[in-house]
Amino acid sequence: MALLVQKYGGTSVGSIERIKAVAEKIIAYKNQGNDMVIVVSAMSGETNRLTDMAKQIDPAVRGRELDVLLTTGEQVTIALLSMALHKLGQPAVSYTGAQVKILTDNAYNKARILSIDSGNIQQDLAGGNVVVVAGFQGVDEKGNITTLGRGGSDTTGVALAAALKADECQIFTDVDGVYTTDPRVVPEARRLKKITFEEMLEMASLGSKVLQIRSVEFAGKYGVPLRVLSSFVEGEGTLITSENNEDDTVEQAVISGIAFNRDEAQLTINGVPDTPGVAYQILGPISDANIEVDMILQNVGADGTTDFTFTVNRNDYDMAFSILRKTLEKLGARVASGNNKIVKLSIVGVGMRSHAGIASKMFQILAKEGINILMISTSEIKISVVVEEKYLELGVRALHEGFDLAEK
Amino acid sequence: MALLVQKYGGTSVGSIERIKAVAEKIIAYKNQGNDMVIVVSAMSGETNRLTDMAKQIDPAVRGRELDVLLTTGEQVTIALLSMALHKLGQPAVSYTGAQVKILTDNAYNKARILSIDSGNIQQDLAGGNVVVVAGFQGVDEKGNITTLGRGGSDTTGVALAAALKADECQIFTDVDGVYTTDPRVVPEARRLKKITFEEMLEMASLGSKVLQIRSVEFAGKYGVPLRVLSSFVEGEGTLITSENNEDDTVEQAVISGIAFNRDEAQLTINGVPDTPGVAYQILGPISDANIEVDMILQNVGADGTTDFTFTVNRNDYDMAFSILRKTLEKLGARVASGNNKIVKLSIVGVGMRSHAGIASKMFQILAKEGINILMISTSEIKISVVVEEKYLELGVRALHEGFDLAEK
Repeated sequence: MALLVQKYGGTSVGSIERIKAVAEKIIAYKNQGNDMVIVVSAMSGETNRLTDMAKQIDPAVRGRELDVLLTTGEQVTIALLSMALHKLGQPAVSYTGAQVKILTDNAYNKARILSIDSGNIQQDLAGGNVVVVAGFQGVDEKGNITTLGRGGSDTTGVALAAALKADECQIFTDVDGVYTTDPRVVPEARRLKKITFEEMLEMASLGSKVLQIRSVEFAGKYGVPLRVLSSFVEGEGTLITSENNEDDTVEQAVISGIAFNRDEAQLTINGVPDTPGVAYQILGPISDANIEVDMILQNVGADGTTDFTFTVNRNDYDMAFSILRKTLEKLGARVASGNNKIVKLSIVGVGMRSHAGIASKMFQILAKEGINILMISTSEIKISVVVEEKYLELGVRALHEGFDLAEK
Repeated sequence: MALLVQKYGGTSVGSIERIKAVAEKIIAYKNQGNDMVIVVSAMSGETNRLTDMAKQIDPAVRGRELDVLLTTGEQVTIALLSMALHKLGQPAVSYTGAQVKILTDNAYNKARILSIDSGNIQQDLAGGNVVVVAGFQGVDEKGNITTLGRGGSDTTGVALAAALKADECQIFTDVDGVYTTDPRVVPEARRLKKITFEEMLEMASLGSKVLQIRSVEFAGKYGVPLRVLSSFVEGEGTLITSENNEDDTVEQAVISGIAFNRDEAQLTINGVPDTPGVAYQILGPISDANIEVDMILQNVGADGTTDFTFTVNRNDYDMAFSILRKTLEKLGARVASGNNKIVKLSIVGVGMRSHAGIASKMFQILAKEGINILMISTSEIKISVVVEEKYLELGVRALHEGFDLAEK
């Protein structure tokens, strides 16, 4: 008898038929003797429908009223799913974020969870109910409705699992687990049975959009075992857990996976005076324009100047470049250049901590294919390289094979 | 400087364009120096869309989760209207029923308001805000979401006006006021500048569906001046107020209006034993089948038996008749008959209290047109007759002219 928190995303509850199917799935888990707490997103398309209406009023709409609007999406789903459970004879109670109550700060549109009052839920579970909670939403201490930002339903699931000390938080989605790399690029890619929180964070932030980064951080922080499963295909999915919990020897590969990001663009200033504060002078105006910077590299120069490179999302390339040109004049730097036809390839694995030579093996694999490396960046459990866009598939496949990640 | 509570129905906020138009209208009132509290319904069609989804899960769905579902409708409108006000530079704050908080009993789908906490609203008004409140919804003392039943948004408006001691509660709808009768039947029908709560109740329950009956009862009980106005046409509408408040002499007609109801059907049992409890034996099974009974007539019989007649909505006629047939056997009554081609015509007016001869004048007008009266029923401020369906228009026009109600 376990306590499971399950989260179903927008596609999983995207129609009345799918909501009925989810209800049946939940009852099967319940009948196995589990206590069930369910977190749901808005039906797919609903959040966009609501956002479109708001944009017809104000294209730049933000703030309190947007959250009042968007939270209706999950409220519809909790009601419909509870009705579907009732219709199948299963007692169920729904809760909005405000009702549960998921207390957040009052940063509308991107609030953070402060605490959850799990008293009602415990009582409902004891009474034999399935508890259905609206994801993505909370309430501040004054009773204002808040949202956790896009994808926040995963975070709701993990936070509830932590508050309830659940045995597992299961995220049902449209993929059946975390793969060694994108199967659309490498058909031999293998589903991982297990991955650590840290690896998952690197995989997620590098473009494997299975889970929201914040929910993985949260799960890692509170030690909540997280499982990614398919809503549509049976299977055990991928368990995301802490490194210590190495109770099977199956997953002893040095590298867990190959991540990649297609949407990169790189900007460089050459001949920057090598003086304190220069990085801030370059990146300050970029971040003021709400452009998110990914990699940052600065090389030691020879003549008292330095070269400074950073990458941004490709959509932000033109704006970033025009901001950079203005900075150039102020700095007296020599020349700015850029490239928006680049991609980032990364190998990820906690094993590389204890294995030397992983980086050189990566470079060797790429060299053998004639792939020129434009930039390199490393962290404790990942190595990223930037290469020309045209090498993306070739590079990913070569690395996947070179590190022996395919299904045996 | 007045405090106005305005309620806009589903048609008035049925599209983004209309919501923008309502925002402009509200700002015009605000700029005249009024404090503004706005109650809105769900956008037209939205409640049906939500109900249809629920019915795909359970055709007989009722209870807690239905209210969780339906209340999203108004929540969408309060957010969009607040955004529209913001976009026009007008500070505004939205509240759901739970936030405001409109405390109700926990009779889901048809809850009754117990109290309203107007503290937040007063504060917001003092801060220069327009306050936008979701109609139709509330919350019970345990925090469960409730609804007041269909049309409950009018009740929310009146209850807020009472709690805030507003100067007027203005109900914006798709008609520009209360008329002496339906202008589609009598083109000369005249908009009433003023009508009493009691008259309005009789008009409303007799088929003039301008306002929900409960909201009029509520307004009368708490002495809230109620005004019906058009969302689309400029005008002062009709003020519904208490009888004492006769400060103008324009409206001194004995009869205020002619109401009618097309959807009547009549059922009669002849030869019912004239013993105690017989009315209950006849009507008990009818009301057990959730059939609403309108008029009830029992005449004194000659031979220790009596004739018993009642009317129901025409849609319920067949079911009522088959129930009646079973009752007939148990009672040993002689014969049941019915007619589903009848209509009810009523004259309504507080003036008839102090004027004799109104009833006989009514009968005379109808007799002059050769209209046979099938049933008669009276109350203190109305007289209703049932006639054959084919006489509806003729009867209404004759009464409208005979009581001199047309525009001068």
